[in-house]
Amino acid sequence: MNLKIALLPGDGIGPEVLAQAVKCLQAVEETFNHTFAYKEAPVGAIAIDKKGTPLPESTLKLCHEADAILFGAIGDPKYDNDPDAKVRPEQGLLQLRKELGLFANIRPVLSHPTLLNKSPLKKEIISGTDFVIYRELTGGIYFGEKKLNEAGTVASDLCEYSEEEISRVAHLAFKAAKGRKKKLTLVDKANVLESSRLWRKVVTRIGESYPEVTLDYLFVDNAAMQIILNPTQFDVILTENMFGDILSDEGSVISGSIGLLASASVGDENALFEPIHGSYPQAKGKDIANPIASILSAAMLLEHFGLHEEAMAVKKAVDKSLKKGIVTSDLKSKSQYGTNQVGDFIAHNI
Amino acid sequence: MNLKIALLPGDGIGPEVLAQAVKCLQAVEETFNHTFAYKEAPVGAIAIDKKGTPLPESTLKLCHEADAILFGAIGDPKYDNDPDAKVRPEQGLLQLRKELGLFANIRPVLSHPTLLNKSPLKKEIISGTDFVIYRELTGGIYFGEKKLNEAGTVASDLCEYSEEEISRVAHLAFKAAKGRKKKLTLVDKANVLESSRLWRKVVTRIGESYPEVTLDYLFVDNAAMQIILNPTQFDVILTENMFGDILSDEGSVISGSIGLLASASVGDENALFEPIHGSYPQAKGKDIANPIASILSAAMLLEHFGLHEEAMAVKKAVDKSLKKGIVTSDLKSKSQYGTNQVGDFIAHNI
Ligand SMILES: CC(C)[C@H](C(=O)O)[C@@H](O)C(=O)O
Ligand SMILES: CC(C)[C@H](C(=O)O)[C@@H](O)C(=O)O
Repeated sequence: MNLKIALLPGDGIGPEVLAQAVKCLQAVEETFNHTFAYKEAPVGAIAIDKKGTPLPESTLKLCHEADAILFGAIGDPKYDNDPDAKVRPEQGLLQLRKELGLFANIRPVLSHPTLLNKSPLKKEIISGTDFVIYRELTGGIYFGEKKLNEAGTVASDLCEYSEEEISRVAHLAFKAAKGRKKKLTLVDKANVLESSRLWRKVVTRIGESYPEVTLDYLFVDNAAMQIILNPTQFDVILTENMFGDILSDEGSVISGSIGLLASASVGDENALFEPIHGSYPQAKGKDIANPIASILSAAMLLEHFGLHEEAMAVKKAVDKSLKKGIVTSDLKSKSQYGTNQVGDFIAHNI
Repeated sequence: MNLKIALLPGDGIGPEVLAQAVKCLQAVEETFNHTFAYKEAPVGAIAIDKKGTPLPESTLKLCHEADAILFGAIGDPKYDNDPDAKVRPEQGLLQLRKELGLFANIRPVLSHPTLLNKSPLKKEIISGTDFVIYRELTGGIYFGEKKLNEAGTVASDLCEYSEEEISRVAHLAFKAAKGRKKKLTLVDKANVLESSRLWRKVVTRIGESYPEVTLDYLFVDNAAMQIILNPTQFDVILTENMFGDILSDEGSVISGSIGLLASASVGDENALFEPIHGSYPQAKGKDIANPIASILSAAMLLEHFGLHEEAMAVKKAVDKSLKKGIVTSDLKSKSQYGTNQVGDFIAHNI
């Protein structure tokens, strides 16, 4: 298969972890006889530095032309505590999601047998966890109208959803549930929010065309508890943009390290794959960042194009590194393996 | 001291747990020679059934006249899955908060030495946890304009904050931090939301008048992880309404049972005390609900009026019931003690 892959390393540890994912994709090319063409472009803080904008036209163009995008990480603390900053790195990612129509963010949450002890949760609580969060990604309060009055004393954000926006991600989530444990949990705050009540109405109606899938509802505050109290109860969680942001990061604690979790952001025409961790600027350039989330993002990319055997080969190589303890220090204290060595080991085992 | 206390039992297990809190207050009256006058009024689903509205005029009037309000629980599943319901029990609570100006919700999160094993989190993670969440309670997306277009296909909620709304709860939180471990963590999503950027600006400025308090910032998605990964890092968490709803329920898992957590909602002129758990309709009338959260709400009420010794007596009696295992079945499987017996034991030990 020929694939055009856009590489967007971004900020902080983005470039170094992405480089390991590319090594693995190259190993897949060799072993399975594919041809992937890579082109790189700046996004985020680094793009602001270079071009004055977090998402340069040329980067967006490259993404539109690519079959898929492999993304590193975004964000730089120098913007976070400046409420008056006019441009922010994160805008690059948000705009990219919007411009490419990447309306569904898919985040698998698994407990890894070899890492059960790394989690802050008890073994018996997390053992067997296997759910996936479908987060709506281009609507809601992230993209609604923002206002600040002239005096700078009143600020607002609008959370708006249309039936259409809810419906397209809901269909993806129901289809996923159909192929899994056949349970879908809608998370909302329908006892308070009008937009949540629309979610409940639309999702309930769509559920009728998936009679094999059991549909459950949870308020978001309760969901934030249930994910920790009893994570094995879930199969597919469907939710809006902001709730999904919070719950998927919360869910990451189950795995034992946020450095293990990958995500796919898909739309009708394009797809982007990225670790769920941030740019972790304190670790930048130190060769200590865990590359596995980025490598597993590459596996999700392969999966997306139906390359199941290839994706499996990557995942198996990752498993091997975990089992053998060829991992970075977030997973094994005083580990002598760096980002590059872990990447090399996994690539060689594909 | 003379106090007029309004009792709002509400729905589900509300009445039965509230009755135990009243027993304890009566024990305090006797032991410490106070006179508390109690008056009861309906709120929530039961008020809808009786009077057609979740917050009848007469209930609101009673609350205005009282020195403090002791609240049970609210909510009935018959309204949750009806997106077209015109009145909802929860409106009663939201309206009450708004009408009484209860702008700050205060939720202590503690790990209880005798209950360390009950938590889904590992002992070594939660041991020593002692933080308190200050949640803004009368602003933000809960109370912003809600819209549904005529066709019922587009819905929205507005999240709006003014400097004034942020500032009053921030001052309370800084004062609390000053009397505690001197650390305040503002939780927001300033990399995306305009309202969060206003929070950051206002809180940063207010922080300058509390130089002894260290001010930290966390994005809400990261906060949802940190509360589980490392809960002992926190002292006072300050946040807006919706984030506070989610994070405080999440934090409740640390204690080992949501049946232990109390909260105070305070304003300039009034204060309301309630368990953080819901109405738990499945348990209604079965004498199995844990009354401790409600009893500890009564302790927070006493504290609020400067009755420290009295509050301490209640807390000590609660500790005794925990140590002796005179607890409901959520804390000890196959416990033979019911709601009433636990309430009696605690009241007798005051
Ligand atoms: C960087 C930030 C804007 C982003 C988000 O909130 O969506 C991140 O937290 C994520 O979840 O991908
Ligand atoms: C019942 C509901 C409206 C309420 C809220 O969301 O504020 C509850 O969850 C709480 O936290 O007190």
